Amino acid sequence: MFSIASIEDRIHEFNKIPFQLYGKDLLLTQEHSVQDINAVLKLADILRILYRNNVSTRCFEGGLAISQFRDMSTRTRYSFVSAAELLGLSVQELDETKSQIAHGETVRETSNMISFLSEVIGIRDDLFIGRGNTYMRKVGEALDEGFAEGVLGHRPGIVNLQCDIDHPTQTMADLMHISSEFGGLESLKGKKIAMSWAYSPSYGKPLSVPQGIITLMTRFGAHVTLAHPQGYDLLPETIESARSNALESGGNFDVVDSMDAAFEGAHVVYPKSWAPFQVMKRRTELMEANDQPGIKALEKECLDQNKQYIDWECDERRMAMTDKGKALYMHCLPADISGVSCEKGEVAKEVFDRYRIKTYFEARYKPYIIAALIVHARFRDPAALVDHMLRRDHRRVGIL
Amino acid sequence: MFSIASIEDRIHEFNKIPFQLYGKDLLLTQEHSVQDINAVLKLADILRILYRNNVSTRCFEGGLAISQFRDMSTRTRYSFVSAAELLGLSVQELDETKSQIAHGETVRETSNMISFLSEVIGIRDDLFIGRGNTYMRKVGEALDEGFAEGVLGHRPGIVNLQCDIDHPTQTMADLMHISSEFGGLESLKGKKIAMSWAYSPSYGKPLSVPQGIITLMTRFGAHVTLAHPQGYDLLPETIESARSNALESGGNFDVVDSMDAAFEGAHVVYPKSWAPFQVMKRRTELMEANDQPGIKALEKECLDQNKQYIDWECDERRMAMTDKGKALYMHCLPADISGVSCEKGEVAKEVFDRYRIKTYFEARYKPYIIAALIVHARFRDPAALVDHMLRRDHRRVGIL
Amino acid sequence: MFSIASIEDRIHEFNKIPFQLYGKDLLLTQEHSVQDINAVLKLADILRILYRNNVSTRCFEGGLAISQFRDMSTRTRYSFVSAAELLGLSVQELDETKSQIAHGETVRETSNMISFLSEVIGIRDDLFIGRGNTYMRKVGEALDEGFAEGVLGHRPGIVNLQCDIDHPTQTMADLMHISSEFGGLESLKGKKIAMSWAYSPSYGKPLSVPQGIITLMTRFGAHVTLAHPQGYDLLPETIESARSNALESGGNFDVVDSMDAAFEGAHVVYPKSWAPFQVMKRRTELMEANDQPGIKALEKECLDQNKQYIDWECDERRMAMTDKGKALYMHCLPADISGVSCEKGEVAKEVFDRYRIKTYFEARYKPYIIAALIVHARFRDPAALVDHMLRRDHRRVGIL
Repeated sequence: MFSIASIEDRIHEFNKIPFQLYGKDLLLTQEHSVQDINAVLKLADILRILYRNNVSTRCFEGGLAISQFRDMSTRTRYSFVSAAELLGLSVQELDETKSQIAHGETVRETSNMISFLSEVIGIRDDLFIGRGNTYMRKVGEALDEGFAEGVLGHRPGIVNLQCDIDHPTQTMADLMHISSEFGGLESLKGKKIAMSWAYSPSYGKPLSVPQGIITLMTRFGAHVTLAHPQGYDLLPETIESARSNALESGGNFDVVDSMDAAFEGAHVVYPKSWAPFQVMKRRTELMEANDQPGIKALEKECLDQNKQYIDWECDERRMAMTDKGKALYMHCLPADISGVSCEKGEVAKEVFDRYRIKTYFEARYKPYIIAALIVHARFRDPAALVDHMLRRDHRRVGIL
Repeated sequence: MFSIASIEDRIHEFNKIPFQLYGKDLLLTQEHSVQDINAVLKLADILRILYRNNVSTRCFEGGLAISQFRDMSTRTRYSFVSAAELLGLSVQELDETKSQIAHGETVRETSNMISFLSEVIGIRDDLFIGRGNTYMRKVGEALDEGFAEGVLGHRPGIVNLQCDIDHPTQTMADLMHISSEFGGLESLKGKKIAMSWAYSPSYGKPLSVPQGIITLMTRFGAHVTLAHPQGYDLLPETIESARSNALESGGNFDVVDSMDAAFEGAHVVYPKSWAPFQVMKRRTELMEANDQPGIKALEKECLDQNKQYIDWECDERRMAMTDKGKALYMHCLPADISGVSCEKGEVAKEVFDRYRIKTYFEARYKPYIIAALIVHARFRDPAALVDHMLRRDHRRVGIL
Repeated sequence: MFSIASIEDRIHEFNKIPFQLYGKDLLLTQEHSVQDINAVLKLADILRILYRNNVSTRCFEGGLAISQFRDMSTRTRYSFVSAAELLGLSVQELDETKSQIAHGETVRETSNMISFLSEVIGIRDDLFIGRGNTYMRKVGEALDEGFAEGVLGHRPGIVNLQCDIDHPTQTMADLMHISSEFGGLESLKGKKIAMSWAYSPSYGKPLSVPQGIITLMTRFGAHVTLAHPQGYDLLPETIESARSNALESGGNFDVVDSMDAAFEGAHVVYPKSWAPFQVMKRRTELMEANDQPGIKALEKECLDQNKQYIDWECDERRMAMTDKGKALYMHCLPADISGVSCEKGEVAKEVFDRYRIKTYFEARYKPYIIAALIVHARFRDPAALVDHMLRRDHRRVGIL
C-alpha cells in the first residue's frame, strides 16, 4: 500500500523534530512541547503504516506491559493490549481485587514489586477529582527510586490511560484524526472546534476528555469554543491553560453557554456529556466517606439538573449551522445516541449514523499513540528504531 | 517421532483437497463441504505432528486472539489459548463485566473497537436458543463492514466455540478421534454411531453437541442413530440436515426412543445428557424476561422429567450389546459419572474408567482444530505455510 | 555491566554442580539435595545477569505457563508472570470461578485438559493444613499418567508457589539475598539467623515461610533460632527436619520463646507473624464444614491471643541487640509496619524504613528463581542452554 520510499520520507521528517521524551512520562499534554506532541503523532503514524504493510514492529523480546484500570474500559483496554502486542510485550492486568494491595501495601512498594520485568505501566484512574493524576505521579516517583537504587534495571514508562485532568491518548488520537481529515497539523490553524457539553441521561461522566481537548487543540492555532450550560464548569486550571495556549499559538479560546453559538461555523464538533466539576468534587468527598445515601441524592440532583438541558443535542438543525453544514463530528465513544442507546441523548441518530464509520477511524489511532508513547519513553532514538524495523525484513504475518 | 518424509506426504495429501476456507468463518459444519471439513482435519493433524516434533508453528509475529465466553469453560478456553499460542497470537478475553458494553454499546461498534490488532475472535454463546449463532453472524457482519470501510486492515476470522446450534470445534475433534481410532475418514462408512441421550441430575445442558454430532457424522457415510426419551427433541432443522446428509453420503440416520436400540451393534457410543429443545426455548424466554420464579419452576419440572429416565445410563450391560462389546465410548467431558461426580449419571464408573484415557485423547485434538480454523481463515495457501514451517528449521523449545 | 568472561565463569561454575532436577518438581526444598538448591540459585543468578545485560533468555517459542492461585497474591503472581516472560511462555491463569471444575471435574482430568500446550503449572494453595502440597502432588501424578499414556507430548513441570508446608520460591529468593549480602552460600556457616514470630493484628497467616526458612537455612550451616510465644508452634515435621539438617550441615537449630533471645547477636532477623499450627488445623476443619460462626469465633480467639504478644515487635531496641546492631532485616512482604499499615505491627517504622530498599532487593530474586526451576524441570542441560543464550547474539530490547 505504501512504498518504502514514502515510509522513509516519514521517518526522515520525524527525525527532524527536536523532541525530548526519552525516559519521560507524558501524563498531561500541557506539560510537553508542541514538538513532543508532534513527535508522538508522527511516530504513531509510522508504526501504523508499518503494521498495515505487514512489517513487524516488535522491539522487545519479552517484557511486561502492566495495566491498571480503576474504572471500566473496553476501547482503551484493547488499545493498550494492542500497543503492547505491536511492540512484543505481554500485558498483565493489575487486579486490585486479586492482590494483597488492600492489605496495607503502599503504592511505593507495589510499584516496585510488579516492575522487575516491566517496560511500561498504563493507568486509568479518572473517577476522583484530585486523585488520578496524583496517583500516576506517585507510581512514577516509586519507579524513579527503584531504578536509582538499583532495584529495577531500567525505569518503566507510565502511560496515562485517562485521569481526572486529561485523557492524552484519546486527545492525541483525536488530534491525529483531525490532522488526517484536514491535511496535517498545520491545517488546524484557524479551524473552529466546538467542544460542547451535550445532554445524557447518565451522571458522573469524567471531565478528562473536554479538558484534554481544550488544552490540546489550542496548542495548534485552532479556534476552540467550549460550550456548556451554567454550572457545568471544567477544572479551572484547564481553562487557564486553554486561554494561554491560544494566545501563544495564535489561536482562540472562548467559553459560551449556548450549543448553537459553538456550532455556528464550526469545522469540528465534539458534543459530549460530562458532570460539573463541583459535582465531581462533592462526589469524590462522598465516595471517600462512603456516604451511599449522599451519593444517591447527588445522583438524583445531577440527573434532574441534566434534564433542564435535554435540548443540548447534536441534531441536524445544529449540524446545518456548521461550516458548509459539514463539520466533522467527533466522539470518544460510546456515544449516547437518541433513540438508540437512550430515549434522548448526546446526538441524533441520523447525525451519528452519517459519521459512525468516521468515529471508528478516530478510535483506531489510539493503539498506535500508546505504542508511540512506549517507544518514546524507552528508546533513545526512535527514528533509528523504526528505520531498522523497515529494513530488517521481518514480516508480521507468516510467509504468505 | 515422525520422519520429515511422512510429514511431507501429509502436506502433499492436504494440498490436493479442493477446500474453500480462506476469509471464511466456519460457524456450522453443515454450511461447509466435506472437503472443507477434511481440510480442517488434515491441517490440524499436520500442526499436531509439527508440535509434537518440536517444530515451531508460529506464523504471526504478534496479533490478538480475542475470546468471548458467555458461558463457563475450561477445556474450550484452554484449547483456544493453546491454539493462539501455537500460532504466535496473544489471547485477550473480552470480559463483559469489565467493559462499557452494557453501557449501550452496539455489537457493531464493539466488534470494530476490539479488532484493530485482532486476527481471530472466538465466541462461546450457547445458552439461549436462537441467539448464539445469530450473535456470531452479527459480529461477522460488523467485521465485514469494518474491513470494507478501511477501519480494519484485514478481516479477523471468527471461531464458533459453541453456539445454540453447533459445537464445530468439538465435533471436528470428535471426528478426528474416530478417524484416528478406526483408520481414516473413509472408515466411517457403515459404522454405527449411537448419539444417545443419557440421564444426568442436572438441567439446561446445551443441545449443540448432539446436534453437531448427528449433522457432522452423517456427512461421512456413518450410520447414525439418535436416541432419546420422548420430549427430548433436538432443533428440528438439525434433524432434517442429518437425514439429508445421510441420504447424500450413503449413510443412514435413525431416531429411536431406546438407548438399547441405539447401542445394539454400535461401533461408537456417545451417551450424553441434554435439555429438550422446547425447555431450552422456554428457558430462553424466561431468562429474557428475567423471570426467576419461572426459571426455578422450569428447573424443577425438568429435573423431575429427567428422573423418569434415570435408567438411561451407559452401563456394562449396554456396552456388551455394542459391536463385539467394544464400541468406542466418547464424551466431550466432563461426564456425569455414576458414583463419582453424582449418585447416578450418564455413565457407569467401570465403563468410564476403561475409556478415560481415550476421552483425553479425544479432547486433545481441539487445540489443533481451532488452530487449523484460524490458519484456514487467514492464509490463502496453508499447505505452503506448513511446508515453510517444516523447512525453516525453527525449533519450538530451546536448543536441547 | 558484566563482562562476557564473568558470565562464562558463572556458567562454568554452575556446570560443575551435580544436580538432578530434570523432569522433577521441587515441591519442598527438604526433598532436594543441597546441590540441587545451589543449582537453582546459580541458574537464577545467571538468568538475572543475562536479563540485566539485555541478553534474551527466551528458550520457548510459545507454550503455556499455567498459574492457579487459591489465595490472593501480587508479588508471587507477578514473579510467575515475569519468569514465564523471561523464557518465552504465556501465562494463562486457571480461574476456578470461570470454569466447570466445580461441576464434578476431577483433578486428574482437569490437569490433563489444561496441559496440551503447557510447559509448567504454578500453584499457590496455602490456606488449609494437609491440603496444598498434597494437591500439587495429585496434579503431578495426573501429569505423569497423561505423559506416560501419550496424552501429553511431554511432562509439564510444577512450581510450588506456596503451600501449607513450604514456600520454596520465597525461601530460595531469601537464600539468594542472604548469599548476596554476605558473600556466597559458604558464608552462611555459623551465621545466626533469627526466624521470629512477630505481632500482627491479623489472623490466619500461613506457616509456610517460617517453616521453609528453618528447613532451608539449616541446610547451609547457619545457626537458626526459631522464636515464638507458647502455642504458636509450626508443623512438627518441619521442626524435625530443621534439627536433622543442622546436625548434618554443622549448623545449629534452637527454638526459644523470647524474641530478645533470638535477636541477641543475630546476623539476620526475619520477624514475621503466623497463625499457630493448631489454629490452622481447626480453621481447616471449620472451613471444610463451612462453619461460619465457628470461623468467626476462632478468629476472635486468635486475635485476642495475638494481643497478649503485642510487644513482639522488631524495634530499634531489639535491632541494637543484634550483631554489631546491624543484622540484616528480612521480610517476604507486605510487612505489618507499626504506625503505617496498622497501629502496632511486626516491625517499627524506623527499622523498616532503613531496610525498605533491601526488602525490595530480597523480593526481586523470585522471578529468576521461578525461571530457573522451570528451566531445570524442562531442560536436560541448562548450562549448555544459557551458554547458547549468551552466544546467539539475541538482544532482549530493540537495536538500541
